[in-house]
Amino acid sequence: MTSRTGRHFLQIPGPTNTPDQVLRAMSAPTIDHRGPEFAALTVRLLDIVKPVFGTSGPVVIYPASGTGAWEAALVNTLSPGDRVLCFETGHFATLWQEMATSLGLKVDFVPGDWRHGADPEELARRLTADTKNAIKAVCVVHNETSTGVTSRIADLRAALDAAGHPALLLVDTISSLGSIDYRHDEWGVDVTVAGSQKGLMLPPGLSFNAVSEKALAAAKTARLKRSFWNWEPIIEANRRGFFPYTPATNLLYGLSEALGMLDAEGLPQVYARHARHAAATRAAVHGWGLEVLCADEREYSGSLTAVLLPDGHDADKVRRIILERFDMSLGAGLGRLAGKIFRIGHLGHFNDLTLAGTLAGVQMGLELSGVPVDPAGLGKALDVLRTP
Amino acid sequence: MTSRTGRHFLQIPGPTNTPDQVLRAMSAPTIDHRGPEFAALTVRLLDIVKPVFGTSGPVVIYPASGTGAWEAALVNTLSPGDRVLCFETGHFATLWQEMATSLGLKVDFVPGDWRHGADPEELARRLTADTKNAIKAVCVVHNETSTGVTSRIADLRAALDAAGHPALLLVDTISSLGSIDYRHDEWGVDVTVAGSQKGLMLPPGLSFNAVSEKALAAAKTARLKRSFWNWEPIIEANRRGFFPYTPATNLLYGLSEALGMLDAEGLPQVYARHARHAAATRAAVHGWGLEVLCADEREYSGSLTAVLLPDGHDADKVRRIILERFDMSLGAGLGRLAGKIFRIGHLGHFNDLTLAGTLAGVQMGLELSGVPVDPAGLGKALDVLRTP
Amino acid sequence: MTSRTGRHFLQIPGPTNTPDQVLRAMSAPTIDHRGPEFAALTVRLLDIVKPVFGTSGPVVIYPASGTGAWEAALVNTLSPGDRVLCFETGHFATLWQEMATSLGLKVDFVPGDWRHGADPEELARRLTADTKNAIKAVCVVHNETSTGVTSRIADLRAALDAAGHPALLLVDTISSLGSIDYRHDEWGVDVTVAGSQKGLMLPPGLSFNAVSEKALAAAKTARLKRSFWNWEPIIEANRRGFFPYTPATNLLYGLSEALGMLDAEGLPQVYARHARHAAATRAAVHGWGLEVLCADEREYSGSLTAVLLPDGHDADKVRRIILERFDMSLGAGLGRLAGKIFRIGHLGHFNDLTLAGTLAGVQMGLELSGVPVDPAGLGKALDVLRTP
Amino acid sequence: MTSRTGRHFLQIPGPTNTPDQVLRAMSAPTIDHRGPEFAALTVRLLDIVKPVFGTSGPVVIYPASGTGAWEAALVNTLSPGDRVLCFETGHFATLWQEMATSLGLKVDFVPGDWRHGADPEELARRLTADTKNAIKAVCVVHNETSTGVTSRIADLRAALDAAGHPALLLVDTISSLGSIDYRHDEWGVDVTVAGSQKGLMLPPGLSFNAVSEKALAAAKTARLKRSFWNWEPIIEANRRGFFPYTPATNLLYGLSEALGMLDAEGLPQVYARHARHAAATRAAVHGWGLEVLCADEREYSGSLTAVLLPDGHDADKVRRIILERFDMSLGAGLGRLAGKIFRIGHLGHFNDLTLAGTLAGVQMGLELSGVPVDPAGLGKALDVLRTP
Repeated sequence: MTSRTGRHFLQIPGPTNTPDQVLRAMSAPTIDHRGPEFAALTVRLLDIVKPVFGTSGPVVIYPASGTGAWEAALVNTLSPGDRVLCFETGHFATLWQEMATSLGLKVDFVPGDWRHGADPEELARRLTADTKNAIKAVCVVHNETSTGVTSRIADLRAALDAAGHPALLLVDTISSLGSIDYRHDEWGVDVTVAGSQKGLMLPPGLSFNAVSEKALAAAKTARLKRSFWNWEPIIEANRRGFFPYTPATNLLYGLSEALGMLDAEGLPQVYARHARHAAATRAAVHGWGLEVLCADEREYSGSLTAVLLPDGHDADKVRRIILERFDMSLGAGLGRLAGKIFRIGHLGHFNDLTLAGTLAGVQMGLELSGVPVDPAGLGKALDVLRTP
Repeated sequence: MTSRTGRHFLQIPGPTNTPDQVLRAMSAPTIDHRGPEFAALTVRLLDIVKPVFGTSGPVVIYPASGTGAWEAALVNTLSPGDRVLCFETGHFATLWQEMATSLGLKVDFVPGDWRHGADPEELARRLTADTKNAIKAVCVVHNETSTGVTSRIADLRAALDAAGHPALLLVDTISSLGSIDYRHDEWGVDVTVAGSQKGLMLPPGLSFNAVSEKALAAAKTARLKRSFWNWEPIIEANRRGFFPYTPATNLLYGLSEALGMLDAEGLPQVYARHARHAAATRAAVHGWGLEVLCADEREYSGSLTAVLLPDGHDADKVRRIILERFDMSLGAGLGRLAGKIFRIGHLGHFNDLTLAGTLAGVQMGLELSGVPVDPAGLGKALDVLRTP
Repeated sequence: MTSRTGRHFLQIPGPTNTPDQVLRAMSAPTIDHRGPEFAALTVRLLDIVKPVFGTSGPVVIYPASGTGAWEAALVNTLSPGDRVLCFETGHFATLWQEMATSLGLKVDFVPGDWRHGADPEELARRLTADTKNAIKAVCVVHNETSTGVTSRIADLRAALDAAGHPALLLVDTISSLGSIDYRHDEWGVDVTVAGSQKGLMLPPGLSFNAVSEKALAAAKTARLKRSFWNWEPIIEANRRGFFPYTPATNLLYGLSEALGMLDAEGLPQVYARHARHAAATRAAVHGWGLEVLCADEREYSGSLTAVLLPDGHDADKVRRIILERFDMSLGAGLGRLAGKIFRIGHLGHFNDLTLAGTLAGVQMGLELSGVPVDPAGLGKALDVLRTP
Repeated sequence: MTSRTGRHFLQIPGPTNTPDQVLRAMSAPTIDHRGPEFAALTVRLLDIVKPVFGTSGPVVIYPASGTGAWEAALVNTLSPGDRVLCFETGHFATLWQEMATSLGLKVDFVPGDWRHGADPEELARRLTADTKNAIKAVCVVHNETSTGVTSRIADLRAALDAAGHPALLLVDTISSLGSIDYRHDEWGVDVTVAGSQKGLMLPPGLSFNAVSEKALAAAKTARLKRSFWNWEPIIEANRRGFFPYTPATNLLYGLSEALGMLDAEGLPQVYARHARHAAATRAAVHGWGLEVLCADEREYSGSLTAVLLPDGHDADKVRRIILERFDMSLGAGLGRLAGKIFRIGHLGHFNDLTLAGTLAGVQMGLELSGVPVDPAGLGKALDVLRTP
């Protein structure tokens, strides 16, 4: 019996469940983007958005989805033929380096098994070998949305520092920002790439570059062609509260509301909540007798968990049954993981009982799909949730 | 750790979780309640509202909450000093007969233990004894929201018929309409009282009287004073699509949307869904080793389940812990049941995973409150939900 | 060419154009009406609602439309057969006295020409003649929505005081509250009747009784039957932040938002705005060479203006042409005024340019209907609006 | 007296007043952009969006604002160093050619006086002179938002055809699509650039490229670097109902609603409505004794009107007074027109009475600013509006 009443469980790792107060905020009438009311909004937003990035520097907001902010990070800082070092942590890291190649950069792509994050020791080796500083930028996906593995940015930074290498550090936080502790300034990140539709609890359509002094300096000489993504006129216009072209006003209303919610909860509490939900989810997975894709417990993701199915079981079939029977969307295995895993998003506007419902649905779906699981799994998650 | 992110679990037995499409429908601008667009809306609504009552007769819609529709049922059909027979099925039945007394009626209140519905055999006895037809109306609460017990209206009707007694049959369906099978015409009900905020999935603010021919005839001679509640001018104005005073236009928009949703799902499917969720809930309660308040399985409610706590445990403490820790509202024990039970609403816009989350929260809350429960309870509910 | 794009102009004298922020506020999920969050909302609302009534005493809020609050005012304070004095100021005054009669009261209905308010001198005469204090209450409609005439409550109070007569003073402010200066306490009103859908800028569905000490005392001995409308249990439950039956929660959210908007603008500014828009409207009417229905300039309404058409012209035809051609709803002539007048609402969430558009539509509609008007009328209104 | 009650008059030439039903549609929960429900939405949208472009070919939708779609049109079809011919019709034409230069193209910028559209005869001369077909693309802004001048695309196409020149024709319809008759296929346009926030009645955040066969062929060899804007993977993924990266789901909901509204009104009626409102606006401007910026009546814009102020008067002061006194936003003079003109938007979700209110506000604002105007102007507009 298909149940399509009640609220859909959108438990993909983003877009996440937009809080209804954010949707309401976004329903306010669009205002004149060249008027005084808009200017006041912009100035305030550009200020209150900083803590979630852990920066005191400029944050550029694009009326575009996150993939655009990847492009912005590259075209503002690099020149044709520049060498960039990318880590194959999963599907999205693979797409980002493909983009870099498309834009005319030369990519060194460090191979990976899609179960680990970017390896700080391998980074150290690569940088040490690069005696001529040919590498202009290191690109890392903080939280691989395709695998549920969180790279250790602080350790990667330490490797750069130890090597005394001048490469820029570009980090994608699309599925970590607002969910997993992140520190643009403290970790010496040069460009942080983010999107609206995950931890920021908004619909897709806004993306971000937090930009270091060093990245701004690089932008002055970078020769990749750019216009829409060009930081300079945006930062210049932002000073007066405006944008050089029409901004996504209604999403900015939502951003204001969402940032207020994160601030009210407190960022440390937000991060702890995500970590706790991730721990409860892993407790269920292990309780079922299944394997979490992430192979290094230091790299467990706070925002999603990828579950590896035993050989001979089709993860997409499990997802389809769960969608049909329980009206819940889960993330598919992407690229080389297709059919082998499914991904449970537990990020954004989320709470204990929604997680319990989610895990109950996963457990029932696994059982209905014939995947052998120990039904004690759900109880293991509740053990975590019951503990304050 | 208190979690106030994500959606609140509103699992009281009403008001229920209004679907967001209903809330959006209600956000449309108020229109002229004397204009042609409004008239078309009214005419359509008064037609499509009938199936949910199981009637082909008139349904009167009040811009008022359900308690007002109780009053309307009485003042339109009865005269000062008339005798009415009421059954003490719980808190709301008690309030309704208090209202009858306040309005100048004489009430025979058949005592009950708050664990059973109105007894058809007792009704038969009372009617048989009433050789002079002093009883002018029989008032029954179909689904006692305070106890989770559903009276068997068809059997009560049969008792009236068997006795050949002319009393009117007035039935409160506030927490059953749109959730539990109900048949105004087939069961010979004279006035069905309903409200918007339960199975109809709307916020509170609308209430209803479905009215039989016999009730309309009674209204012609009934002498209780009435004006706001008076059926006659409403039914008269409704013919042209209007109301004699300002209607609750935006709730009518929501009603249109909600009735469309019920129709799309299909009323038999709606009732089956509620029954299935009720069965899953009882499976959990019994699995925990606790007792369901309803003592007769023929009278189990499809829309809510009242859970009896073991002696020495305070149900309000359990509810408070669940609210604080898991952001879920449950119904309190009312009147003589205060502190002894809590009530789980599983009606309206609701689905399997929300129920699973609800029951997970109840289970954890019971454990945290020190109530001895078998944690296998939740799994028993999942066994029901997993079955198509 | 019919234009049904853009926003409909809802210029009836209520329901008024609900501000979109109020509609958004009303879209928040319904909460548990017996929980702590609701209690806090109620306590705050019952406090901040007082200034708009000009009272420091209790305000009773009903989950019902305004007509119900008329009934409440009568049944809480009076006994069967009590004599009440009503003034025939128009259609709604006529309906209210009909209700009083229906409820078992004896009505002295002072005849009127529907162009004047309640006459303080006539009141004085009536009270003086009533040497035995047979009159228990005087009922007055502050602002007659059917005529656009505002009775002078302070002068009526003075007449009561001068006569030393103990009758209660019951005042309907349905289309004046929040639009026209009103002072429940200062004017010694005993029950003020109000609704949500006019100056309070909400959809219909809430109504109000502001209640004096004297009215509360009268309620203790009043013998009209009452239950739903009974003040006592409501005021009692309100003390703890609750209601004795399910309140219209989402409208209460809207009320909170709307009261905040009135407070932000400032009540004196709100009243001045309405007076200014009324003056501009009359300037247009007089400029067109037409007559305002209200015959005494001391009684011009701030919230609506009724326009009298020359003999031989059908006001309903004018309204129909305006609705079809310009998508604007105007108020019809009611009762004896049917076809002779139309009414322009200029109350609630409203501003200069919406009034200018409204008056432009009226002017064009009059011209298209063949009513002889001087097109300089609109400019006369702009002369008023242009003046700060 | 500043009036900030009632609805703001957003009469800039975009973003326009989003209909509340579109805002409500956008408030629906974000769904899985890789699930079957989304696929069905995409397939339907990509079909129903075609008529508004007048095309049967593919339309690419970007989760980005209109400026991005300018960039997309260039980078998908051209190679570094390619020559493009642009017409200086105003501020936005100037910005577009600056972008082309930034992206590595060589721009021939035909000078203009900002009061005329692109000149078909000048185009003919330029093409005839280009015997080696060095010009790879002709870029034209259909409706110059900065001036209110609409270039005659059909005549430009005829010039291209007459010259037998193979250059691509790229047309910006950001402020004309959905407001002014436009025919991508019939006029042989190769890339039509559009945005969501004008005639499509949405908030900003979506943009479009309608693409001809010839443009698709050009894309195969075009060597400007591209990734985010690359048509190919989008068109490829669209076949199955998906996007290669996260789409702006909620704006797509709004697009579906808005396209339904345009279809219900009928595109010819939509264009006629805009033309009629533009005519009424010009009647007012001429009636005031002022000059419309557009110097050629064949090129009058249906979506906005720029009003030239007499020497010695500051248009920004007029706009400021109108914003402060009447809560209406008008468009500023941009670039070389700063202070000399203001622009009245009369496009999108709009109707006669809103235009009347708008023009009343402009007239009063001009008077208050000391600009000599004949107050008969408004009446001239009403003469147009009164005519069916």
